[in-house]
Formats: sequence, structure tokens, C-alpha cells
Amino acid sequence: MSNKIYLTPGPSQLFYTFEEHFKNALFLDVPSMSHRSKDFVSILQHTVECLKELLEVPAEYDVFFLSSANEAWDRIIQNLVINSSHHFANGAFSKKFYDFALQHGMESTLTQVGDGAVFSDFTVPEKAELIGLTKNETSMGFTIPEAEIESLRKANPDKLMALDMVSATPSLTIDLNNIDTAYFSVQKAFGMPPGLGVWICNEKCHEKAAKKSEVSSLGSYRSLPNLKKLGDKNQTPETPNTMFIYLLGKIAEDMIKVGKQKIVNDTVYKSTILYQAIESHPKLSPFVTDSSYQSKTTIVVNADGPEKFISYLKEKGLVIGSGYGAHKENHIRIANFPTHSKEVIEMLVDFLPEIE
Amino acid sequence: MSNKIYLTPGPSQLFYTFEEHFKNALFLDVPSMSHRSKDFVSILQHTVECLKELLEVPAEYDVFFLSSANEAWDRIIQNLVINSSHHFANGAFSKKFYDFALQHGMESTLTQVGDGAVFSDFTVPEKAELIGLTKNETSMGFTIPEAEIESLRKANPDKLMALDMVSATPSLTIDLNNIDTAYFSVQKAFGMPPGLGVWICNEKCHEKAAKKSEVSSLGSYRSLPNLKKLGDKNQTPETPNTMFIYLLGKIAEDMIKVGKQKIVNDTVYKSTILYQAIESHPKLSPFVTDSSYQSKTTIVVNADGPEKFISYLKEKGLVIGSGYGAHKENHIRIANFPTHSKEVIEMLVDFLPEIE
Repeated sequence: MSNKIYLTPGPSQLFYTFEEHFKNALFLDVPSMSHRSKDFVSILQHTVECLKELLEVPAEYDVFFLSSANEAWDRIIQNLVINSSHHFANGAFSKKFYDFALQHGMESTLTQVGDGAVFSDFTVPEKAELIGLTKNETSMGFTIPEAEIESLRKANPDKLMALDMVSATPSLTIDLNNIDTAYFSVQKAFGMPPGLGVWICNEKCHEKAAKKSEVSSLGSYRSLPNLKKLGDKNQTPETPNTMFIYLLGKIAEDMIKVGKQKIVNDTVYKSTILYQAIESHPKLSPFVTDSSYQSKTTIVVNADGPEKFISYLKEKGLVIGSGYGAHKENHIRIANFPTHSKEVIEMLVDFLPEIE
Repeated sequence: MSNKIYLTPGPSQLFYTFEEHFKNALFLDVPSMSHRSKDFVSILQHTVECLKELLEVPAEYDVFFLSSANEAWDRIIQNLVINSSHHFANGAFSKKFYDFALQHGMESTLTQVGDGAVFSDFTVPEKAELIGLTKNETSMGFTIPEAEIESLRKANPDKLMALDMVSATPSLTIDLNNIDTAYFSVQKAFGMPPGLGVWICNEKCHEKAAKKSEVSSLGSYRSLPNLKKLGDKNQTPETPNTMFIYLLGKIAEDMIKVGKQKIVNDTVYKSTILYQAIESHPKLSPFVTDSSYQSKTTIVVNADGPEKFISYLKEKGLVIGSGYGAHKENHIRIANFPTHSKEVIEMLVDFLPEIE
């Protein structure tokens, strides 16, 4: 690897054990293994077990592998929504899930507030079969608190709750008992290269897919019943990204060794010193002002002259992100993932006052 | 890597430059690069250009990235077929494409002959909008000759021709002018780990997708118009498998340096000595008997006691494949891909007479 450290919101810095596991994967011939072999079945089982432990996934939920979080949006609409879903959006990624639903011909609905703004109205139309929520809006640095998810769940016991955990998991504690289906990609907080998505589903999802299959196609190889049928044998319908499934399992295992609570605590510590440094800088301020909604994993910052901050830090070997979309000219974004050590974040915090 | 050599039909042996390119990718920070950055746009462009040169893709065709050949079947049905496709099947993989069409609710039709048997009737129903053909049926070691593809094309000028090039390309010369859409996965003849699919489309495909979009959904992020819109900028809709796109480009570049014709010639030489050794062994015979239809890249062999051959060769460090599906008890399969050197195949040929 180069001597740069990526604090971009994803793809981001590789997890510090990635390269070692990659070498081991080559030594074990993982890339040449048949995906139907006993050896690979054990690898997939190990990855699922580690993810379930690390992410505190209820025992009866299933974990499947896709190629991205985009694909999770695709498969959720294809398998779990017959006519309509409802989406809460305050940034690009939460809005995109709604767009996908429309592209699939759904009569979905949207509660849209301004970029990074707090939701004040959690009313969901009666016809909505599924509610789309984003734990961490990576584009705007907004996090929805667990309490709001829980009360939304209680108000809508018969609807499916779908949670986007991209760039949130495993850095935050998320109660998946309030959620029926959740998903994330690995190039954010897991510190892997992009190309793998994880999709979690409970029994309510399987029941819904069975119901939808009576009136409409669920797609083909990655229909939920097909994923479930093969998944129950620790297999996948297609030849999957075997290397990344292996690597994700090893990284999840490492994170379990570090300790879930330590990862969560370190995330809080690092985000706290970051927000303090930002608030005390004359040319910076947090984009999301209410601290209960400020993301701890992707810190989005109003910057007077973002390019100055990006280029100064780059010279110091720290690569931070630019603002998303229209905010390129007035935002910077700083990732705070498990692979970003306290020392790196402290170094970044020390550099900030040097930038005028 | 271990000291074993994988002659399995895929996942197979890694291409001999894979590890070097992987190290380079880490050095260049490919895993942490934004997929919207200029650096990654150049990487993707390079991969597309090398693939087009190596596979002799007509200049006006587009090359897109998916996660597997399974996904190509999925996206072809979703984007290019409104009511019906027709499929020629003589093995598991050619049949699966037809199954996917039915799962998508199509009224598709099938010409099915016995495993590995020659097609005698190339009649295609009038209603079929697309014809599904498999250049190399990996399960049965059957190859369809270019002349048959060409005459099928001439008899059906108004239908889309879809060619499965899995385990065939780049080892065989394929005239893509007879084809409107083609696809392959990288864990076969490209010597990569699984997790990436390549989908080639021409203008006729884009026209068909536009027509279908008037009556039906094409899906979402990986609809053909969306792939085309982003692809024209050397981008992808989602954060793609950036590492594998980089690695595929570097391996394609290496193969161009070796020379397409040399790869094709070596494939012929290696398959010739393999078939000779099989024919002269008392307990082996080629499964496909007519040499015009024998696969040059995945040699499927009737074996009296396949386990004996598999275990003897494994002790010598050569891992060959077992028979597919029901043929596990009476077949062995031997891959002949560009990464398998003449020396390795000669060694295998020398070992065969030692097995009784």
C-alpha cells in the first residue's frame, strides 16, 4: 500500500489485517476453490457466523451475499414489495432507494426533508408494505437515532422495516429486532475493497416473498426463496465472490477479537474529538447541527474553501472526502471507521488548526 | 499460493501474473479509490479497451461489468426480452438460461437435446425475440462451431443473438459480428477469482431495451440504459468491484502481449495432446465423440472410476474436476485455459498411462 491514509467515506482505508488475510487466502487456494466444495461451504458458514455475532443479528435471521448495497435495494423491491413502499429521505442515498422502487414500477411514496434535516413527521401511508430507512446518510452525515427507529416500528407493526446500514455497521449499536431486512456494502466500515454486499432477512421477509411470488416474478437466481434454499446449505445460487466472502469473515473475526463494544466506544471517542476540532475552527462547522443526529462514522463539515483542507491534509498523507453532489463546493467529509486508529484521528485533529 | 495446480473448469488456476498485479493494485491504492475519480475512470477505460482488443469486439459494441454470468442471464431477460426467447440446450448451463427466462415470467421456448449431443434442428419459433446459445457447454465439454452460429444468425436476422462465452473466451476465436450480446465470467479462462461478469451489447440491444421500457420495467441500477449512460463516461451505476476491474484489465493486457493467436494455437495444441492421451487410455474416452464439437477448453471425459484419476493426479499436485451433476460417477473434467502451460498439460498427459 502507499503511505497515504484514506479517510474518505468509502471506498476507504483497507482494514489493517486485509493484506495478511489476502496472502493467506492465496496460500489456501481460496480463489481456485469450487464454491460447492466442503472447504468453501465452511468458509461461507464461518463468515455468516462471525457477521451474526459481530452485528448482533438475531439467531433466526438469514445472511445472504450480493454484489453491492445498490443490489440490495434492487432485490428488496423485487422480492418484498408488491405495490408500494415508503421511504424517508434527507440525502442522496436514502432518496435513491425510493428512485429504485419507482424504476421497478412501484407506486411508492416518499417523506423528503432537506439535506441532512431532521424528520418531524413519521406518518407512513396505509398502503406502504415496507418502510425504507437509512441508519447513516453517508452523503450528509446524518444518523437516525435508535429511539426513532423503535417508535416507527411500534407504530407500524405489520409493515416490513428495511434498514440501510451502509457506513454505520459495525461501528454503531443497532437493534435488529426492530428491523426485518437490513443491508450494507463492505467498502465502508469493514475496510474492504468494493464488490460485496450483505443482505439480512427475517422470516417476515420470506413470508412476504412467498406471497409476492403468487402474483409476480421475484427475479431469478437471486430471488429470496432461491437465496434461502441455497443459503440453508451455506451455498449461493451462482459462483460468488469467494475471496471477498472469505476476507469479510476473517475481518469480522478480527473485529470480534477487538471487541464490538470497543469498536463502538472508539467510534464515539474519535467522533467526539473530530466534532470538537471542527467546532473550534473558524472556517469549519458541522453540517448537521443537532448532536443527536450527527453521524459518528461519516462526519460532514461546512467548510469555507473545502479544497484548502483537502489539499493541505493530502500533503500530510491524509486523504479526506469532498462534499457529495451539489455540496462539493462547501463541504468536506471525514470517515471514522474501525480501521482509522485513534492516533490517525488525533493527528488529523492536530493538523486542522494549521489550515487557515 | 499452494503448490497445487488447478485444472478444474472454474474457479480454476489463477493467471500467472495475478499476484503481481494484485500487489501493484495495493501499491496504487486501487481498493481505496473513489469509483468516480479520474484515476478509476482511466482504469475502467483501460480494461474495456484491452477486452475489446483481445476479444475482437466490434468497435461500436459496449462492454459492461456485472457480478457473474448468472447476472448476465438475469439482465438479458430483464432488458432484452418482452415475451419470449428461445434457447438451445445440451447441458446444465445452456438449460439454466432458459430456466431464468421462465422465472421472469417469459413464454420462452427450448430446443433440448441429450447431454453433450449435437443439435440437428435449428428451427426457432417466430415469436422468439432472442436466441440463447452457449459457445462452450462447460458441464458437458461441447462446443458449437462458428459455422453453425453464422447460419443461425443468417436464418434469423431480426432476432437478437445472445452468446454465452463462459470458459470459451479468450481461448477461442469467436466472430462477435454474428452476435448482439455476449457475456462471460472471469474465473474460467481469464484465471481470476470469481466475482465479476462481463456483458457485451450492441446497438440492437439498446434499441430493444428502449422498446421494452415502453411496456415494462427494465429493473433499476443495472438497466441497460443506465449501464450505457454511465458506461459512456467509463463509469458504473454502483460502486463496482474496482479491484477485479483493474486486475481483469491487466491480465487482458498481458494476454494481448502474449498474442491472441498464440493463445488460440496453444489451446489447440494442448487440447489435441489431451484428447490423444484420453483416446489411447483403456479406461478413458471423450464424452463428446464428434471432434468438430469437442470443447478445446473444458475436456469432459468418460472415466471408468473417475475417483481413481482425480486422486492419483491430486497426489501429483494436479487438481482436475469431477463430472457435473449426475455425471459425477462417470466423468472427469479437465480445463485447458491460457494459464495452463504446455508443460503442465504435457505432464498431465504423461501421468495418465500410470493410472489403471
